[in-house]
Amino acid sequence: MNVAPPRRKPRVAVLGATGAVGQAFVRLLVNHPWFELVEVAASERSAGKSYGEAARWIGDEALPASVGAMQVLPCDPGAVTAEIVFSALDSSVAGEAEEAFARAGRFVLSNAKNHRMDSDVPLVIAEVNPDHLDILAAQRKLRGWNGAIVTNGNCASIVAALALAPIQQRFGITQIIATTMQAVSGAGYPGVPSLDILGNVVPYIADEERKVEEELQKFLGTAANDHIDPASFVTSAHCNRVAVEHGHTVTLSVKLPKPAPVEAVREAFATWTGAEDARGLPSAPERPVILMEQPDRPQPRRDVDAGRGMSVSVGRLRADPVLDVKLVAMGHNIVRGAAGASVLNAELLVHRGLVGAA
Amino acid sequence: MNVAPPRRKPRVAVLGATGAVGQAFVRLLVNHPWFELVEVAASERSAGKSYGEAARWIGDEALPASVGAMQVLPCDPGAVTAEIVFSALDSSVAGEAEEAFARAGRFVLSNAKNHRMDSDVPLVIAEVNPDHLDILAAQRKLRGWNGAIVTNGNCASIVAALALAPIQQRFGITQIIATTMQAVSGAGYPGVPSLDILGNVVPYIADEERKVEEELQKFLGTAANDHIDPASFVTSAHCNRVAVEHGHTVTLSVKLPKPAPVEAVREAFATWTGAEDARGLPSAPERPVILMEQPDRPQPRRDVDAGRGMSVSVGRLRADPVLDVKLVAMGHNIVRGAAGASVLNAELLVHRGLVGAA
Amino acid sequence: MNVAPPRRKPRVAVLGATGAVGQAFVRLLVNHPWFELVEVAASERSAGKSYGEAARWIGDEALPASVGAMQVLPCDPGAVTAEIVFSALDSSVAGEAEEAFARAGRFVLSNAKNHRMDSDVPLVIAEVNPDHLDILAAQRKLRGWNGAIVTNGNCASIVAALALAPIQQRFGITQIIATTMQAVSGAGYPGVPSLDILGNVVPYIADEERKVEEELQKFLGTAANDHIDPASFVTSAHCNRVAVEHGHTVTLSVKLPKPAPVEAVREAFATWTGAEDARGLPSAPERPVILMEQPDRPQPRRDVDAGRGMSVSVGRLRADPVLDVKLVAMGHNIVRGAAGASVLNAELLVHRGLVGAA
Amino acid sequence: MNVAPPRRKPRVAVLGATGAVGQAFVRLLVNHPWFELVEVAASERSAGKSYGEAARWIGDEALPASVGAMQVLPCDPGAVTAEIVFSALDSSVAGEAEEAFARAGRFVLSNAKNHRMDSDVPLVIAEVNPDHLDILAAQRKLRGWNGAIVTNGNCASIVAALALAPIQQRFGITQIIATTMQAVSGAGYPGVPSLDILGNVVPYIADEERKVEEELQKFLGTAANDHIDPASFVTSAHCNRVAVEHGHTVTLSVKLPKPAPVEAVREAFATWTGAEDARGLPSAPERPVILMEQPDRPQPRRDVDAGRGMSVSVGRLRADPVLDVKLVAMGHNIVRGAAGASVLNAELLVHRGLVGAA
Repeated sequence: MNVAPPRRKPRVAVLGATGAVGQAFVRLLVNHPWFELVEVAASERSAGKSYGEAARWIGDEALPASVGAMQVLPCDPGAVTAEIVFSALDSSVAGEAEEAFARAGRFVLSNAKNHRMDSDVPLVIAEVNPDHLDILAAQRKLRGWNGAIVTNGNCASIVAALALAPIQQRFGITQIIATTMQAVSGAGYPGVPSLDILGNVVPYIADEERKVEEELQKFLGTAANDHIDPASFVTSAHCNRVAVEHGHTVTLSVKLPKPAPVEAVREAFATWTGAEDARGLPSAPERPVILMEQPDRPQPRRDVDAGRGMSVSVGRLRADPVLDVKLVAMGHNIVRGAAGASVLNAELLVHRGLVGAA
Repeated sequence: MNVAPPRRKPRVAVLGATGAVGQAFVRLLVNHPWFELVEVAASERSAGKSYGEAARWIGDEALPASVGAMQVLPCDPGAVTAEIVFSALDSSVAGEAEEAFARAGRFVLSNAKNHRMDSDVPLVIAEVNPDHLDILAAQRKLRGWNGAIVTNGNCASIVAALALAPIQQRFGITQIIATTMQAVSGAGYPGVPSLDILGNVVPYIADEERKVEEELQKFLGTAANDHIDPASFVTSAHCNRVAVEHGHTVTLSVKLPKPAPVEAVREAFATWTGAEDARGLPSAPERPVILMEQPDRPQPRRDVDAGRGMSVSVGRLRADPVLDVKLVAMGHNIVRGAAGASVLNAELLVHRGLVGAA
Repeated sequence: MNVAPPRRKPRVAVLGATGAVGQAFVRLLVNHPWFELVEVAASERSAGKSYGEAARWIGDEALPASVGAMQVLPCDPGAVTAEIVFSALDSSVAGEAEEAFARAGRFVLSNAKNHRMDSDVPLVIAEVNPDHLDILAAQRKLRGWNGAIVTNGNCASIVAALALAPIQQRFGITQIIATTMQAVSGAGYPGVPSLDILGNVVPYIADEERKVEEELQKFLGTAANDHIDPASFVTSAHCNRVAVEHGHTVTLSVKLPKPAPVEAVREAFATWTGAEDARGLPSAPERPVILMEQPDRPQPRRDVDAGRGMSVSVGRLRADPVLDVKLVAMGHNIVRGAAGASVLNAELLVHRGLVGAA
Repeated sequence: MNVAPPRRKPRVAVLGATGAVGQAFVRLLVNHPWFELVEVAASERSAGKSYGEAARWIGDEALPASVGAMQVLPCDPGAVTAEIVFSALDSSVAGEAEEAFARAGRFVLSNAKNHRMDSDVPLVIAEVNPDHLDILAAQRKLRGWNGAIVTNGNCASIVAALALAPIQQRFGITQIIATTMQAVSGAGYPGVPSLDILGNVVPYIADEERKVEEELQKFLGTAANDHIDPASFVTSAHCNRVAVEHGHTVTLSVKLPKPAPVEAVREAFATWTGAEDARGLPSAPERPVILMEQPDRPQPRRDVDAGRGMSVSVGRLRADPVLDVKLVAMGHNIVRGAAGASVLNAELLVHRGLVGAA
């Protein structure tokens, strides 16, 4: 069932390694079967310190000693030698830094928003749209790069996109209304002040609704020769922050091109296994989307770790009186919605022979 | 600005006085300028005890000694003599008990779901549809009652209905998609176990979505001779429980019969003051709906007590890419969404001379 | 390092299997290497149903299908045939039921408070006082039982006892002042209403302080021929409930018979490995007590799963200006503080040949 | 009952006005019957902006427009002209700034830790030790100031000191063991990251234990000619952060010089009304310490606003098996523990004629 590992382990690095997502990358990569984590890089402020000193480690398990001892490098392709770099950089610096790495021949797997919507940059969920990687050749040619940039989406967009893919691929979609209830870890660390969120709901996350509305179209769009044609559906997003540690919950009302019975949609979920290409990759969960039948699930605290944090749980599938169907989706914003998604994308690149061969 | 008080204070009682909503009634009535709280009633288990013994008082302020000393009566018009009774009864017993009181000539202001959707029973928000009380004459005639039953809606429905009224009354509405994030106090006491909700979202509240979908139509419908014609719009509700003490938050996407610019809708909110009839009543807030302009408001913990808990706060009014406009609304589920709404309805009955005259 | 398994797997059952602690037993026993879970029993209300129906499963992982299909038996040695029974019974019924099982020749590992303080009933933490099992012979003789009852303590007592054992065994203890901050899961399910604990501290848990004060003396006492002599120190406990899911935190100020430098106490923690007898048992953690050096640890959310929930984490060891040393301890109230402790005690009984031989 | 207002309203200013405590000062002073709030000052970063722009207003009620329009001044006695200044400055700048104001003839009411433990600077709770103000003459002489500095303590110290004062003043105290459970607002805004505290306890607050241990001695000490003699008791503090918005809870075990029955201590609480001098001042609560008899009170969420946030609630008074008595105390850390305490101290200065006369 598992796919064959690469003949040699590509050397990888994490950019922006000290933040919440950067730490998640470190956790996922430190004993990764396919990759060798050789370098960590961060801002000037941290560069030169040991990673153990520079990172305020927020994980539940101890920081692996081998990584704690690594010297933090500057985010510069002159200093970082790895051929694959995972970027958890802040958007204020990610744009230029990621381009510099791509120009220097590295594969950049980015969590930053800077290049996501560039028409020649694929925005990829391995199980949903792996064929979007086909535009990389055009990207490299157009930009004159030996390397490349592959992005993954905003954490809320990824959760929604996975829940919508089985519907889109079977029936098509014309309209989506999405309300998110997003965990505090989505804002990084220190992130949301406790005084703002204890016993509260904050009905606003800066720039988040635009991202969800645009990224869903791109994720579920189609690869043309040298760019991605966004899907033609329209999305309206309401984004909220709630007092949850990990796990973004999204309610979704969906309109189909022509009505389908709920049972047909249920069947689409039950049989959807995601793209062939992604199956058996080390970070791929057995089931990328899990349809739950209990009336009160999924719930972030109870279901967030399904598939080691890589499965999106879907529930309450039912008819929508206004559009056609409605449901609720929940997934781990740091794992499936950020670091885990990038690592899976890198595995896909390796599996497809785009990197690490020879 | 305030309307004239009644010439005599009607004697009032609370049915189901020991629960969370019952206690809220007691708090609101104990020093009410128009009503004299003379009796509290509850289930067999509590009857005969003093109210102080029977109620596990959950309020922040101390239980008033005068009420603590009252003997709890059975929920029976033979035992309870008040002419106005506020019902916080559980739906398992509310149906029959409330009818018995109405038959015995009392005015019943009910929070229970049992009679809400009966076509001859008005479902009233004083500022939104006071004219629905006009069907009471038909109710009394049809049922052969000297008293009457007036209901208020589910707590989430009331918050949404107030936020939608300015739109409906100016433009009409054809479609609504609503996602609620509801406080734990909406489930009463003991209600939601802490193990279920700490750091969690529960995307399900039994029977809640149906109530919201039906009640909005009735609230915003029109009074015919002897029944209410529901509004013709269609609603889809997603109901969720969140770790908030008080205050239901609702995101709303709304379609109008014909598109209107957001600024026109903003203007509708800015100028909406609610029905003339309700203005100046003791429990009526200065502004039944408050439009907030800060990008991240309303928030339950910060805004729930606006208008002494009787104002619904609305924010983030903007264009909806799928329907026409979207917004977020938040109101106090126990005050505006339950006890306070009933007390205001009773004040309206008195003001209109339907009860307490002579 | 691991001790040899028994030649045959003793058949075990859980009494009170549907509650929060009962469910924890099921989780720990379903794939246990030494025990075969053959029966689940609960109150009359549940008896006859399948376990899947009767238990509102609150775990994060799915209920194992094999257990879900088991028929719930009444808590009666006529119906339950297992030779070892784990009791998660409510104290209102545990007293008689547990005696009936012991009389019928079964080994009862009890979490109930009923028999804990009986002088001929051992109160055991496997790593702390395994020799207290020596009084079982006297118990059986005195009571005319073929079986026996072994208890474990209150969840807060167990956490504190483990943290104090390294001090008591090296230096002795004369006085303890303990303040607990206890998780909501310690009160079972539904347990603490969310309205009582969200954003709150409740400085009271019924009867808890007495238990902590008495049980610590018994845990750290010495086995005489036919009873336990309690330790002679005196304890004062302040017990509080906080908005934490799992993990009881306890601050401890401790007076020694004669002062010792903090470094000597630190050394006692660093070298303490618990009783020889318990080492290598399947449920025994590698380190029963973990001394943390970070200034702000242990924390329940970050450290509760240390040692698969069986380690107690200790931190902030420092001099106490009033007594001699102070520290903070934290452990998983459901695993180390309840079900896991009982299972470990059962493993100890098997290892010592008291049950399951031949 | 209320004392006479001053003949003229002294002009007052807030230093560090944009932070959480600074905002609390603004709230308390904006309609103060005795003071006229004329200026707000803050760091260079804010100076020059309007207060409405500079302060991220976190209060529940709207920022008063009159204050929102004030221009933020630098924290410099050349720019700020008020005769009384309330300092909510960060300790990194408070030391010098406060001295500069005192040197310039102003009365500084400080919340910063910098001068609290200076032997010639009074650390005052108006109801507990108003006579400590007597050393101000010595302070002014010694330092050559026309103005003066009066400090109030750390928020946890103030809550504990008020709860201990009735005991100390009646019986004396020799030993105290205190465990705090402190609200997040005690760390200011943004303060505690939500990822650190949701569902968690953090058993550490930097430098807090030392403050509590030292300040209690000074609060409950005695004024000598030109300095304060600290009380001779010894305190051990364990300081913890919990997921509570406002309200510090403290468990206290107390040893008396000679044992007294709990009933005598209860009587001491029941009859303690605080220093004569503070009674009737505008910010003084009717009862500075409220002894609650319910077994599970005080609780921060339910009792924090007692006496408009200025009362400390005490409960669970009982015998301590190790020391003599134990109890739990809770008070509002921002009001009683910070801004409210300073305002009350300023009222006391005015009432004693030390400032604002003629």
